[in-house]
Amino acid sequence: MTRLLISADSHVQEPLDLWTTHLPAHLRAAGPRVEARGDARCILVEDTVVRRLPSRSSTTGEDRAATAFTRGASDPDARLRDLDADGVWGDVIYPNLAFFCCFHIRGTALQVAVARLYNDWVADQFIGASDRFAPIALLPILDLDASLAELERVRRRGFRGVLLPAHSDLRPYNDPVYERLWASAADLAMPLTFHAGTGRSQTPAHGPGGAVVNYVVTVGGPMETVAYLCGAGVLARHPALRVVMVECGSGWLAWVLHAMDDAYREHHMFVRPKLDALPSEYFRRQGHVTFQHDPVGLANISFTGDACLMWGSDYPHPEGTWPRSREILDRQLAGVPEEAIDRIVRTNAARLYHFRTPDAAPP
Amino acid sequence: MTRLLISADSHVQEPLDLWTTHLPAHLRAAGPRVEARGDARCILVEDTVVRRLPSRSSTTGEDRAATAFTRGASDPDARLRDLDADGVWGDVIYPNLAFFCCFHIRGTALQVAVARLYNDWVADQFIGASDRFAPIALLPILDLDASLAELERVRRRGFRGVLLPAHSDLRPYNDPVYERLWASAADLAMPLTFHAGTGRSQTPAHGPGGAVVNYVVTVGGPMETVAYLCGAGVLARHPALRVVMVECGSGWLAWVLHAMDDAYREHHMFVRPKLDALPSEYFRRQGHVTFQHDPVGLANISFTGDACLMWGSDYPHPEGTWPRSREILDRQLAGVPEEAIDRIVRTNAARLYHFRTPDAAPP
Repeated sequence: MTRLLISADSHVQEPLDLWTTHLPAHLRAAGPRVEARGDARCILVEDTVVRRLPSRSSTTGEDRAATAFTRGASDPDARLRDLDADGVWGDVIYPNLAFFCCFHIRGTALQVAVARLYNDWVADQFIGASDRFAPIALLPILDLDASLAELERVRRRGFRGVLLPAHSDLRPYNDPVYERLWASAADLAMPLTFHAGTGRSQTPAHGPGGAVVNYVVTVGGPMETVAYLCGAGVLARHPALRVVMVECGSGWLAWVLHAMDDAYREHHMFVRPKLDALPSEYFRRQGHVTFQHDPVGLANISFTGDACLMWGSDYPHPEGTWPRSREILDRQLAGVPEEAIDRIVRTNAARLYHFRTPDAAPP
Repeated sequence: MTRLLISADSHVQEPLDLWTTHLPAHLRAAGPRVEARGDARCILVEDTVVRRLPSRSSTTGEDRAATAFTRGASDPDARLRDLDADGVWGDVIYPNLAFFCCFHIRGTALQVAVARLYNDWVADQFIGASDRFAPIALLPILDLDASLAELERVRRRGFRGVLLPAHSDLRPYNDPVYERLWASAADLAMPLTFHAGTGRSQTPAHGPGGAVVNYVVTVGGPMETVAYLCGAGVLARHPALRVVMVECGSGWLAWVLHAMDDAYREHHMFVRPKLDALPSEYFRRQGHVTFQHDPVGLANISFTGDACLMWGSDYPHPEGTWPRSREILDRQLAGVPEEAIDRIVRTNAARLYHFRTPDAAPP
């Protein structure tokens, strides 16, 4: 594959002392920090463990994901070299630790400060360095006035998208309190992204099989959010709004689109609000999902269309496609029409995030 | 379609006074009963509303599902006439109200008594009437000694399968306490079935879009149970065990099989227990799902195989395919190879539940 790629899902590695060093003094003690607990290092917020890190000597993928293991994870020049070697032109950048911390926080002021610190750090590192980088800003969510203020602030700082929790167990996404946020994001042309694993606990299972169960729950989690956004009429009321389910694969999407429509038709006597079109049609018009390698999703393009599919490398995480993205894409895209491949590996993301790739007309 | 069908998912209508009339006196007050609450009729167990019934004058599908609307829902002769008219030879029979009540009960003795009353009623009505009926017995689940005793009892009464909650939030399905149950069900060749909507609350969403969200959550719910049974090694340790996810469709299955294997390979450092094969292989060997109309599932047979797929009419519920089952099957099975159709609409269910259809060799 010689075409230039855009990864719609990549990550940084934040400095582990970002919050312990830079939070205002009165918030610092409750902010994210790393501490030893038994033989493990753990991330804590508000004195609660939100994530365990394996020991420094570990060579597991978790360790590599949780601690810096390539300079490009935090250094823009090194990152561009890694991208070039992988054939990737554009890079949509998500946090690594920050989003696991941010949505566990219960204190409004602390959540706002934690999100702003991350947003400022990633903007300082990457936004000025190259327009090939499109970092996604964390949006505090406990107080909607603060959400709206941060949305407007990060838009001015040059962000091209914001992140909300994939699961909002605090306040489901059909709550009218969000209405101003949907309207503002649509108005500012800021895509709302929902990254797998963010929000409520994504590890319901413990003991035998836990890793398999939790992966299915985490990666399949955005299904419920899709159903809220489509079923509650959020997308219908805000046709300019764009939403993206990130790192969740696309294999479940054909089924969810079908199930939503089935519910809408078969249980019509319970369905509120009534919509002008079927729920799935709004997702096809305004929704996206990102995948790394997903043969099931690619085999179901006849149900989903290709306008909602975007590939992501998950750089620099070991479960992604980096540094063999072109090889893995060639293999999994065999048989997909060329124009569809163009949309999936580049132009859908270019249009959504306003990338101007050198070999493509401005979107 | 002229071939004889077996519906792997049908329902009865229990008498609404089954428990208020027949439970032992000391359990009767806490047992399932129907009461008016405001302008709705509700089903209560242990003084808690577990389901609302629309008013008697309603003509909605919910009302038709919740109250007898065809004699065949409780009368075996009328049911055979309905099956004949629909081209259905064999009928796997689930409760209608009983399984919504049973798994909400917190008292062990009450749960056992409620399940036994249902099992005896459905056996008296249908098991002796025709071997074309294969009712599924409710298994009490709060006390495993009682589960095992009822499993053995209903086996002797001629049942060909038992029902467990699709979600076990009380005790997840990787709990070692279940080990004796898995072993006994395998030993007795009694398939374990998990019907969508049973177990923990299946209605997390309220307000706008709730019907769409809750349908996706309910019908997709068995995904997590599949991950437990495969990932925790239940199927691997009990190769003779057979498990069935009922009325959940098959459209998510290809994705879940892929996601489980992805987790097993990519997160191998966290995976316990290690298995001799990938998680998906155990499901293909020992697992089944039932669907009514599911174009997504049928388009993904190359991922799932057809050995795990079984059609069900959902008779007598209005969202099923009855009374137009052959027409709906003809339409959705267009393009599927003849041998695969045979397996999906008859022989998979015949083998699993020991039906002896007139035009097939004994399985």
